[in-house]
Amino acid sequence: MKYKVKCSIWIEGDEGAFIGPGRIDLLENIRIEGSISKAAKAMKMSYRQAWELVDSMNKQSKNPLVVKTSGGAGGGGTLLTDEGIKMIKLFKKLQENFQKFNEDQSKKWLP
Amino acid sequence: MKYKVKCSIWIEGDEGAFIGPGRIDLLENIRIEGSISKAAKAMKMSYRQAWELVDSMNKQSKNPLVVKTSGGAGGGGTLLTDEGIKMIKLFKKLQENFQKFNEDQSKKWLP
Repeated sequence: MKYKVKCSIWIEGDEGAFIGPGRIDLLENIRIEGSISKAAKAMKMSYRQAWELVDSMNKQSKNPLVVKTSGGAGGGGTLLTDEGIKMIKLFKKLQENFQKFNEDQSKKWLP
Repeated sequence: MKYKVKCSIWIEGDEGAFIGPGRIDLLENIRIEGSISKAAKAMKMSYRQAWELVDSMNKQSKNPLVVKTSGGAGGGGTLLTDEGIKMIKLFKKLQENFQKFNEDQSKKWLP
């Protein structure tokens, strides 16, 4: 028998869920697509659901993670802020730390 | 803003999921009820589903976690083995360790 500890992490804020793997996927898709509706489509999620997730993240953050831009050559779109990019990096860093802790705990406690 | 990292842990074995919070609940209910069907009822789960979970745990363990007993004054029933009791303790210990790590990571990385 070779067992392994696995874990799934998320960050809670004032309203409960703030950031988790699905929300990070959404932020990354918004960054790539430059639009909430295109990001939602790429993830097979409704626009409404994607918008509600973005709204929940923005409301629980000191500065918004996602902003709408208007005008310009492309006629505006949706952008990740520096705070949004920072949040993706932070979450991935936390996932790495937990991954290391997992391996450590598996070796220490499991047959 | 006060953020917290949360995590949910499970143990994987040869066939994928081996032990997780729901399976530990089931083991604890079997220990209390002395029967898979009573434990399933207490958890509003079908007997079939509970039996399959027990079977999956037993198959992935060197020694079974749950055994059937026959005869005796009560006409037999279902018992947790020492291995089953050890597994409950081990999983709770791991949950505690991750809880401490969570708090540590929250303080270290989150505003």
